[in-house]
Amino acid sequence: MPQFKRIAVVGAGLIGGSVLLAAARRQLAGSLAGWSRSPEARALLKGYAVAEIFDNPVDAVRGADIVIVATPVDKMEETFRAISPGLSAGALVTDAGSVKAAIQVAARVLPAGVHFVGAHPMAGSEKAGTAHASADLFANRPCFVTPTGSEPGESVRLTHAFWQALGCRTVECTAQRHDEIVAAISHVPHASASALMLAVGSLPGFDPATTGAGLKDTTRIAAGEENLWVGILMANAPHVIAGLRAAEDQTANLRQALEAGDAEKVRQLLADARVLRQSLDRPA
Amino acid sequence: MPQFKRIAVVGAGLIGGSVLLAAARRQLAGSLAGWSRSPEARALLKGYAVAEIFDNPVDAVRGADIVIVATPVDKMEETFRAISPGLSAGALVTDAGSVKAAIQVAARVLPAGVHFVGAHPMAGSEKAGTAHASADLFANRPCFVTPTGSEPGESVRLTHAFWQALGCRTVECTAQRHDEIVAAISHVPHASASALMLAVGSLPGFDPATTGAGLKDTTRIAAGEENLWVGILMANAPHVIAGLRAAEDQTANLRQALEAGDAEKVRQLLADARVLRQSLDRPA
Repeated sequence: MPQFKRIAVVGAGLIGGSVLLAAARRQLAGSLAGWSRSPEARALLKGYAVAEIFDNPVDAVRGADIVIVATPVDKMEETFRAISPGLSAGALVTDAGSVKAAIQVAARVLPAGVHFVGAHPMAGSEKAGTAHASADLFANRPCFVTPTGSEPGESVRLTHAFWQALGCRTVECTAQRHDEIVAAISHVPHASASALMLAVGSLPGFDPATTGAGLKDTTRIAAGEENLWVGILMANAPHVIAGLRAAEDQTANLRQALEAGDAEKVRQLLADARVLRQSLDRPA
Repeated sequence: MPQFKRIAVVGAGLIGGSVLLAAARRQLAGSLAGWSRSPEARALLKGYAVAEIFDNPVDAVRGADIVIVATPVDKMEETFRAISPGLSAGALVTDAGSVKAAIQVAARVLPAGVHFVGAHPMAGSEKAGTAHASADLFANRPCFVTPTGSEPGESVRLTHAFWQALGCRTVECTAQRHDEIVAAISHVPHASASALMLAVGSLPGFDPATTGAGLKDTTRIAAGEENLWVGILMANAPHVIAGLRAAEDQTANLRQALEAGDAEKVRQLLADARVLRQSLDRPA
């Protein structure tokens, strides 16, 4: 028997589209509903033929017992306001945004009697958009669940159950702790990769036709869609700013050691970085 | 008929070991000779059973018509001095170092009557050492050949022929131009990846057990062996310093836009970086 009566996905790009495909394949609900702002995405979603696709978000959420909001981070409050008139009493609202504290604040506009529990499945890629959606996107991916502590325990339990049913391994922490963690493992690397790409692009030796694995690996995530990332970086600005300052300081450290011709200092910095990097590949 | 009478490889780690394996598989010479500083590497090389392995570099080069010096960049002058008494008149000496101008200067200690033509095969990985050597390491990899213009044309032609025979696509330019190019595509990304790893490692949200593809890709090359890289970065210091300054500037730019809450500026920087990054994947 399906776990949910009706699942509604609001904002169906890479993440939202994949939620619909995965929920359909795993038969998680009696019925599926979806909405996307873009007519092209709606046409694609209709083509998948797994969900009833609506032209406006308020109709999409009517009658759903669980609603997943997967619009860009800087559109969340607007989306919460838009769906509010259609939400059923007692409905669970979760999301898939890459920041959690700012979205928790935005969710305060939801009507009383609706329960919000934030989530962040660590799935995705530099390929955004409904066209890249996949029923396998969440398989074995970590997913943060970030309750405030004041919501009903049953809502938190259902949020874990939902993301686990899509294939995720869920991890619970506060929204603040989540934002600190993803700054370190995702937002700061993303911003740094973009800055490095801009820097290398300004050097006299740069030519896109002559490149190497080092530059390509180091800047791969800078190919990400800026309209998605501007919202993420702005919404997690304090942690990202602190991380970028640390990157500037460490880069200056290494540069100054080179300027001083201090081979031992350079060696020590590179060795410390190597040990840290190797720790990421150690089996958990 | 083999192209060379006897090929000698001096310094047989990942690159030198792979030269021996590739030359053997492709039957490039009547005989192969090798030397490595490390007894463990020499034992490994003897196990490969493709070359006569010597305990000292001067014996390794005796009778060779082509000598490949593949010791670390900061050991090149020392190696050139060490092999000089054993070099045959008319022998061609080439190398595989990641910087070219400094090695061209170091090669001035070679005896008159020996011809040096610098080279840099863009092959390798964060896995250093003889144990990772492979006959396929050079297949379809770019290789810079950096003549001074004052050596015999036949030496330059033979250098191209040698690296091509190992599988490389050779590209000719000056040592100075080479150093500018590899700063942009390899040395600056390497140094920046190390600095980013140190920065992320210092953040409160960092935990090696919780990581993501973004951080892993962006810092992958920081796992490189520091004893190799310290020599490379020091020998190409002017270009690397300029590149690190550019990285600091671009990082500060992005950070300041976040501090100012200037979403349009952040969006523009991310968009410029995305366009540059996408240009690296465009088919040549």
